[in-house]
Amino acid sequence: MKASQFFISTLKEAPADAEVVSHKLMMRAGMIKKLGAGIYTLMPMGLRVVQKVEAIVREEMNRAGAVELSMPVVQPAELWQQTGRFGSMGPELLRIADRHGNDFVVQPTSEEVVTDIARQEIRSYKQLPKNFYQIQTKFRDERRPRFGLMRGREFVMKDAYSFDRDQASAKASYQVMAKAYRRIFDRFGLTYRAVAADSGAIGGDLSEEFQVIAATGEDAIVYCPTSDYAANMEKAEALAPVDPRKAASQAMVKTPTPGMATCADVATFLNIPLWNTVKSLVLATDETNVAGEVCKTQVWLLLLRGDDSMNEVKVSKVPGLATNRRFATLAEIDEHFGCEPGYLGPLGLKKPVKLVVDREVAVLADWVCGANEADFHITGVNWGRDLPEPNLVVDIRNVVAGDPSPDGLGVLAIERGIEVGHVFYLGTKYSQAMKATFLDQNGKPQFMEMGCYGIGITRLPAAAIEQNHDERGIIWPDALAPFTVVICPINAERSPDVKAASDALYAELMTAGVDVMLDDRGERPGAMFADWELIGVPHRVNIGDRALKEGNVEYQRRREAAATAVPLADIASVLLGNLKV
Amino acid sequence: MKASQFFISTLKEAPADAEVVSHKLMMRAGMIKKLGAGIYTLMPMGLRVVQKVEAIVREEMNRAGAVELSMPVVQPAELWQQTGRFGSMGPELLRIADRHGNDFVVQPTSEEVVTDIARQEIRSYKQLPKNFYQIQTKFRDERRPRFGLMRGREFVMKDAYSFDRDQASAKASYQVMAKAYRRIFDRFGLTYRAVAADSGAIGGDLSEEFQVIAATGEDAIVYCPTSDYAANMEKAEALAPVDPRKAASQAMVKTPTPGMATCADVATFLNIPLWNTVKSLVLATDETNVAGEVCKTQVWLLLLRGDDSMNEVKVSKVPGLATNRRFATLAEIDEHFGCEPGYLGPLGLKKPVKLVVDREVAVLADWVCGANEADFHITGVNWGRDLPEPNLVVDIRNVVAGDPSPDGLGVLAIERGIEVGHVFYLGTKYSQAMKATFLDQNGKPQFMEMGCYGIGITRLPAAAIEQNHDERGIIWPDALAPFTVVICPINAERSPDVKAASDALYAELMTAGVDVMLDDRGERPGAMFADWELIGVPHRVNIGDRALKEGNVEYQRRREAAATAVPLADIASVLLGNLKV
Repeated sequence: MKASQFFISTLKEAPADAEVVSHKLMMRAGMIKKLGAGIYTLMPMGLRVVQKVEAIVREEMNRAGAVELSMPVVQPAELWQQTGRFGSMGPELLRIADRHGNDFVVQPTSEEVVTDIARQEIRSYKQLPKNFYQIQTKFRDERRPRFGLMRGREFVMKDAYSFDRDQASAKASYQVMAKAYRRIFDRFGLTYRAVAADSGAIGGDLSEEFQVIAATGEDAIVYCPTSDYAANMEKAEALAPVDPRKAASQAMVKTPTPGMATCADVATFLNIPLWNTVKSLVLATDETNVAGEVCKTQVWLLLLRGDDSMNEVKVSKVPGLATNRRFATLAEIDEHFGCEPGYLGPLGLKKPVKLVVDREVAVLADWVCGANEADFHITGVNWGRDLPEPNLVVDIRNVVAGDPSPDGLGVLAIERGIEVGHVFYLGTKYSQAMKATFLDQNGKPQFMEMGCYGIGITRLPAAAIEQNHDERGIIWPDALAPFTVVICPINAERSPDVKAASDALYAELMTAGVDVMLDDRGERPGAMFADWELIGVPHRVNIGDRALKEGNVEYQRRREAAATAVPLADIASVLLGNLKV
Repeated sequence: MKASQFFISTLKEAPADAEVVSHKLMMRAGMIKKLGAGIYTLMPMGLRVVQKVEAIVREEMNRAGAVELSMPVVQPAELWQQTGRFGSMGPELLRIADRHGNDFVVQPTSEEVVTDIARQEIRSYKQLPKNFYQIQTKFRDERRPRFGLMRGREFVMKDAYSFDRDQASAKASYQVMAKAYRRIFDRFGLTYRAVAADSGAIGGDLSEEFQVIAATGEDAIVYCPTSDYAANMEKAEALAPVDPRKAASQAMVKTPTPGMATCADVATFLNIPLWNTVKSLVLATDETNVAGEVCKTQVWLLLLRGDDSMNEVKVSKVPGLATNRRFATLAEIDEHFGCEPGYLGPLGLKKPVKLVVDREVAVLADWVCGANEADFHITGVNWGRDLPEPNLVVDIRNVVAGDPSPDGLGVLAIERGIEVGHVFYLGTKYSQAMKATFLDQNGKPQFMEMGCYGIGITRLPAAAIEQNHDERGIIWPDALAPFTVVICPINAERSPDVKAASDALYAELMTAGVDVMLDDRGERPGAMFADWELIGVPHRVNIGDRALKEGNVEYQRRREAAATAVPLADIASVLLGNLKV
């Protein structure tokens, strides 16, 4: 491609609403253009990157035996009513009425449509397993779209759906995808981690997120540097402490802690370690009758160490806390504790509550908690002496760096990541809701076992930039770059030699199938180099009169500080040897 | 591709709602699957065809210097309000409100968005010309979607938009596209015609439709077999008759024609040629005041020969009839003619009307028209004698086969076509509405000259099928076939030789880059052959024990009645010599 036949549009400054570096750089490099909140045009430079992502994903999905189709963007609401998602999904689901007043949605994913296809097309176990995928435009009406392509409303996703005859086969299909995803992310040339994720109500361990590692990532990733263990924060288990509880050594004392309403304040005030304090979180669960009215409410007290934070997903796994869970109201707290938040504790309650104790709290001795009286805490509290031994001891905290790895092979570390892929075993959730059955070997109808597998096609370039950039701009891995090589002729209009050498190298690389750009815009070298460093092309060849007189050109790799002189006669083969595509 | 790794789903019968052959065959061949009215999933077999169309279009658009981008499917209403199309487009425009109540549309085309991009990005004449294109999902909420992909609601279109500094440059850009379209349609391997089309209010001749010729086509195409002339019916000019009007030879006579309310009835009843009768069509145009109320109405009488039909587009070009045109009401007709329709004519009016006379009527002598009295016509009417010579003589009829070609190089013929592409010079319609200007050489802002260029990507396979099918199914041109070659091993499970020969040929063709399918489903030959004839793969190789014993395989081309025996050793090179891709 020659620059004169392409469209290059770079900006010195990013627009004010671009907060994260990938958004800023994609705007400045002319890769995307905002049309509305969370809605972007993929400009020619950006579309090339997205098409490279698509090509790699398509190739590996095909290699893994998945079959491509393309489901509609606008989908009738009827199928979404069959699974209940038309009602249960919030306003992120973009709903439309057509000219006849019939309800439709703009697809955020396609479980309903693909299950509808499967239940019509797949009649016999002989047709299974099958994996259908598409690369299509999706829409999610985010309340607060931001960060450019990172959290946009319209986006492109590769979504795949596997159908199997039984759980064993479904798990095998899942593993085929998990393996294909590793190949895909390896080919992208990004640093990533496949982490275990929560598999929701379905259970089992068949849920992994593919996270591109970046300091600016939204997600905390937990991993063990000395083993293969990796999980997201929701999933990572905090093991029960190995050391037994110490014996009580202090008397229980009610202590004034005026205005000290947080564990941190109390620890400082009392000059004790934060881990020796216990925080009280009060939840409530509502039971409703058939009319949907609340007929019974249960109040729960969760105890966590002062230095720990609550893990919502783990709390949702506690028997009784799965659904209709909320924080208790001030009135409910007063009714049960006779006190305002900040000084709550498990001792001296006005009305009984259900107690849930984190594993680390269960092994504390001589601990400190609120006295259920404003401005007072109790010190020297001990299980079995001052209150009964807890009978519901569970893991409800987020792990922290240094915790033992659940696989017993080291200690945990934490880094940040951006989720760009997810493989997930669905079980029969959708096939049951939509009555998608096949006939098994005995001629008996069975629900299909399903899995779903997503990759955020337009999110991936943003994640790649968060991981790979410097103060001058983007640094693309070869596989994702809009152009792998750029040739920058210096003052070509004044030097026939420069023009001839540039044209010849361009022709040679084109013939070799290299995705090469010849910058024939006639820009000054400084502006030209700045553009290509911003755009992030990984290999640049500067061709100027001075070096050319000695038979050389300048080879500048985007990641390297300095250019190297390479003989003009060798540059094509040097490049071809270096490219990783 | 091996059939076992793909998804093949054929039907014996088409569903009842499939009316046209392409819809029936695409459903039966498992290429599309209906999700809702006018909304289809592209199944794996159909998606392959669509992807081949896309690849050819993309390659030729790039070759022609157009630059690909991708605009959003969901677009803010604001831009559509700037051009007025948010209001003026009917219910075909699918409108949505997002969670905040802001208005959006699902794109039917993207003039607004691309003009918005151009007005932001293009500042100087130095950046022009530029041509942006996309291949993207579109939606048009048709009142009566039908014919499968032919007139669906959701579809894929390639839409391109050129921007130029002046008309001369815009016309050059238009010609580049018109030429690229010819290359594209040549590569598809279809019989097509580029026909002149009406260019609407803009005028000029820069509007051509690309019509795939098919007996079942919705459009009538006019062409001259002995010259290059081709136009659609709206556009094709009916030249003024060369022979002068004959002298009057009959007296004017009021004649009873009881119950004869059509020209055909009158001609039969009076035993005269239909062309000697004149039909009267009564239109009205309304003038409105600023409040939008009708303040003045003009009634028009159009005279056409009884054997001709009115051409709406030509009528719209008559001065005064361009806008707010409608058929007159019965009351208006009675007020001016004193008679009901069926017996109207230009003689003896109660109130004056504006007269518009078709060129052929102006040269009639001794003609017949209504007497403005029920059950009576007038015969022997003559211009200049019985009524004044007409002063508004224009072409308002549809041409018919046998008319002289407007280029003077022969006579016109008519055939049917399916419109799958359109190139169109837009002028400054959108750039003026959206204030898209650039600075010219003198630093003066000028409106950009635009053109737009569409290809119906998902419509094209349907048109190809309407043109290429037989009683057994689809006959794809090589370039569009989902697979170019299919290998059908016969009883491979019982013959290791058949299996080995099939696998070897498959491997050889794969290596040669041929899009080959190996049918390893183990179906019986009859069912297997029927499937591939229905699906329309152009080259089939049957490998069976009997022929193999003599070193042969059967080569069956989809268009040919019989298979030919070809030595196994030669079949790959025979195929490679025959493929047109």
